[in-house]
Amino acid sequence: MLDQPTRFSKAPPFGVAVSTNQAITPRSKDYAEWYQDVIAAADLIDASPVRGCMVIKPAGYAVWEHIRDDLDRRFKATGHVNAYFPLFIPQSFLSKEAEHVEGFAKECAVVTHHRLRAAAGGGVEPDPAAKLEEPLIVRPTSETIIWHMYGRWIKSYRDLPLLINQWANVVRWEMRTRPFLRTAEFLWQEGHTAHATRAEAIAEAEQMLEVYRSFAEETLAIPVVTGRKSASERFAGADDTYTIEAMMQNGWALQAGTSHFLGQNFARAFDVTFQAADGTLEHVWATSWGVSTRLIGATIMAHSDDTGLVLPPAVAPTQVVIVPIWRGDAEKDGVLAFAAEVERALRAGGVRVTTDTRDTLKPGAKYFEWERKGVPFRMEIGPRDVASRAVFLAQRTGGPKESLPVGDLSAPFVAAVQSRLAAFQAALLERARAFRVANTHRVATYSDMRAALESNGGGFFLVPWADDAAAEAHIKEDCRATIRCFPLDSQAEAEGQRCFYSGKPATHMALFARAY
Amino acid sequence: MLDQPTRFSKAPPFGVAVSTNQAITPRSKDYAEWYQDVIAAADLIDASPVRGCMVIKPAGYAVWEHIRDDLDRRFKATGHVNAYFPLFIPQSFLSKEAEHVEGFAKECAVVTHHRLRAAAGGGVEPDPAAKLEEPLIVRPTSETIIWHMYGRWIKSYRDLPLLINQWANVVRWEMRTRPFLRTAEFLWQEGHTAHATRAEAIAEAEQMLEVYRSFAEETLAIPVVTGRKSASERFAGADDTYTIEAMMQNGWALQAGTSHFLGQNFARAFDVTFQAADGTLEHVWATSWGVSTRLIGATIMAHSDDTGLVLPPAVAPTQVVIVPIWRGDAEKDGVLAFAAEVERALRAGGVRVTTDTRDTLKPGAKYFEWERKGVPFRMEIGPRDVASRAVFLAQRTGGPKESLPVGDLSAPFVAAVQSRLAAFQAALLERARAFRVANTHRVATYSDMRAALESNGGGFFLVPWADDAAAEAHIKEDCRATIRCFPLDSQAEAEGQRCFYSGKPATHMALFARAY
Repeated sequence: MLDQPTRFSKAPPFGVAVSTNQAITPRSKDYAEWYQDVIAAADLIDASPVRGCMVIKPAGYAVWEHIRDDLDRRFKATGHVNAYFPLFIPQSFLSKEAEHVEGFAKECAVVTHHRLRAAAGGGVEPDPAAKLEEPLIVRPTSETIIWHMYGRWIKSYRDLPLLINQWANVVRWEMRTRPFLRTAEFLWQEGHTAHATRAEAIAEAEQMLEVYRSFAEETLAIPVVTGRKSASERFAGADDTYTIEAMMQNGWALQAGTSHFLGQNFARAFDVTFQAADGTLEHVWATSWGVSTRLIGATIMAHSDDTGLVLPPAVAPTQVVIVPIWRGDAEKDGVLAFAAEVERALRAGGVRVTTDTRDTLKPGAKYFEWERKGVPFRMEIGPRDVASRAVFLAQRTGGPKESLPVGDLSAPFVAAVQSRLAAFQAALLERARAFRVANTHRVATYSDMRAALESNGGGFFLVPWADDAAAEAHIKEDCRATIRCFPLDSQAEAEGQRCFYSGKPATHMALFARAY
Repeated sequence: MLDQPTRFSKAPPFGVAVSTNQAITPRSKDYAEWYQDVIAAADLIDASPVRGCMVIKPAGYAVWEHIRDDLDRRFKATGHVNAYFPLFIPQSFLSKEAEHVEGFAKECAVVTHHRLRAAAGGGVEPDPAAKLEEPLIVRPTSETIIWHMYGRWIKSYRDLPLLINQWANVVRWEMRTRPFLRTAEFLWQEGHTAHATRAEAIAEAEQMLEVYRSFAEETLAIPVVTGRKSASERFAGADDTYTIEAMMQNGWALQAGTSHFLGQNFARAFDVTFQAADGTLEHVWATSWGVSTRLIGATIMAHSDDTGLVLPPAVAPTQVVIVPIWRGDAEKDGVLAFAAEVERALRAGGVRVTTDTRDTLKPGAKYFEWERKGVPFRMEIGPRDVASRAVFLAQRTGGPKESLPVGDLSAPFVAAVQSRLAAFQAALLERARAFRVANTHRVATYSDMRAALESNGGGFFLVPWADDAAAEAHIKEDCRATIRCFPLDSQAEAEGQRCFYSGKPATHMALFARAY
């Protein structure tokens, strides 16, 4: 646990004006600055001229590609297909689901004109003659337009279930933005499914929560708590919201993905019914679920250190960087030839590897740069390694370097490297899990939690709770902690206990934390 | 060549209200209706409530996924990386490159407000208090914002070349739309590269043209003519536009992809300079290149027939459909078990295969449906096939069915199926190439071309041409034919010839056609 959990407000939005060589602020000094510095040092994003929108640079986007491809495989393996719906939503659609509009329709980008014209003073301006009859909203999420379409597609129980996912950009006009965690435009996936029964829809929402949990743990090496949201933290329009919550290194929580059971709310709002096998007409049952580029922020915050970015091998664009070391041209040729052999063998074995052949930088400067970029393993190859047919392997998170014989560069060598990558992936998960365990507390009273938050700044607090929205709001106001979820695997404990805040009989076990 | 090339204007926009079983209008009767009917029968898209925007349904989106993944591999193999830039472009950016704004800034979606509020009469409306100081334009293409960013990233020759691609949605407020070919929002990729020298930028633009050509021919089985655009058909802001032009079955041309040499135009507009090795400051040289969901329309139009969609195996979401045939439960179990074995073997061999096990439809109805969906091969399996361990293979485009022994379902069987798929892919390309050759004409005079267009409605015309924008405009007005390109491999022929229109000494060989 770091001493001083801080907010991002001090740092300029997407403050990436630092050069690649600038020192990284230690976590203990200023966690928010550290996060910005790690992102800058790894060259993941840049500020854009559009308020609240970031440019995802190649190093950042490559992480997203790995996240997307891995999740997409999991969605398809559970029977889902992809489709694409329009970016724009007619304004009137946002009035149809009352709670939904309350939660979403406020801060969004509104398109009012479809043409520009030359302006009197030079430049261009919206053409008043091209004002839209009905404004269009840039989607903040797509439930409304998708349920309008589902109304055209669903007639009979034979059309169900409908299991569709969309990869898309969405826009929410956020006032305070933080790189990856909260931006006006972001990339995400949104699943929207339609079912004949309530039970089937709930099972789908639970299945997708499990897909997110296993993805977070297996691919991002981030342990998560699975649970249900309290009514006040629920998605606007949902009957129930499931969530995966991760702990960052300052002890704050980060909501990493949500899966919603929408009941028949959107089906009613858009009048989507189906004829059941017995001929009766019923409203369709729904779910939606999504994760976004926010997961990149979660991954950075969960694993990185004061040296810079740390990436789990499963999403690292480069898993192994080979740094050849030589003096003079005679050594150079032999070292580079051997490095190329090693690279070819690893690449053929499915390892994402690159060789840093630049002769403008010394090895130490290369180490520094690749460490800041979060590459899991560095492989040093010098003339003596060529002679002994071995490489020196250094792990991003430290520990002694290992001399690894390459043999004839065949399967055993490749398997050895792959096993190091798998062990590193597992170690990151275990380290994060141990950190979460150490910083998850059970407190007897609210004042204990308040005191712990004051002194530590973060931490998870698992407590008996009597459900009460007013009390929840007061706690948030008082100490900035919110109910992250009612953890699925802790609910049995609530039985017979008293609420840590009100003393009333507990209805749930609640996990409180400060959150991004 | 079909007798009556028609325009799409008769059909309702995205008229997909037809049921799956509705007959497909023959190409010879109404080419535009045929195109709409093929799309509807294959369930590729649906109309959306947003003017000019289509919903890409799962069957259509799956084709796009194959296109995207294949192209993405080719881009990465040529050294490009992906990134993501904001959806919104500040209005002032569109005034910076004079020709670019002329060509693009007219019809586009303009965001003027960032909040909705409750309206007096119910519903919501843009909040006048949340009017943006500067309107934002939904990107019609991203040159301006990307070159703004490149100005921050490029300082020295060491930062070059910068080889970035983006997969994104873009919006152009089109007045007349056609499914896939011209829609207000569409999905595409846009490559934007920066180079130290003019020669290197031209080589890049030519390289990407070749990537597009090989992709169109190898993956979409669409033969294309590669060439340069005339000045009047050039991209707004480009010094030179390269294009691949395909012939549709009505003899019309479809521009399937373009690659632009942008000179230093955007570098000047956004003041992007680099320090050369000798210390001098120079403006950066640029290219951009893109293809879009339009390629799906090109694929449909190039290969489909009066029965419905025909897809090349390389982009067919399902390459082989197994239709089991049985009477009574005793037969059913054996047939389904064998079909499952066959499916497993093919799937393990990388074939995209599905088995239609529905017992609500007779085999004939299933054949009908899968033919309309464009699946390259149907595999029929009945009780006698189980006994003889063989399958009946029917090719989507006809010809005798083939009895294919499955043996022990090992490599030889899978290889046999794969070789049928490869042969089908090659046959589609050859058929399209033969069609184009048969419908590409050399005419002595403009009146000959005009007469041929009047009687045939389509066709490509390769003619000597003296470059003249006014003459080009007159021909377009007179017979709706435009210069699709100056084909790269025909230019030597122009030497010593006279323009087919003006009689002046020819400057180019031009390919004329009516075009989508």
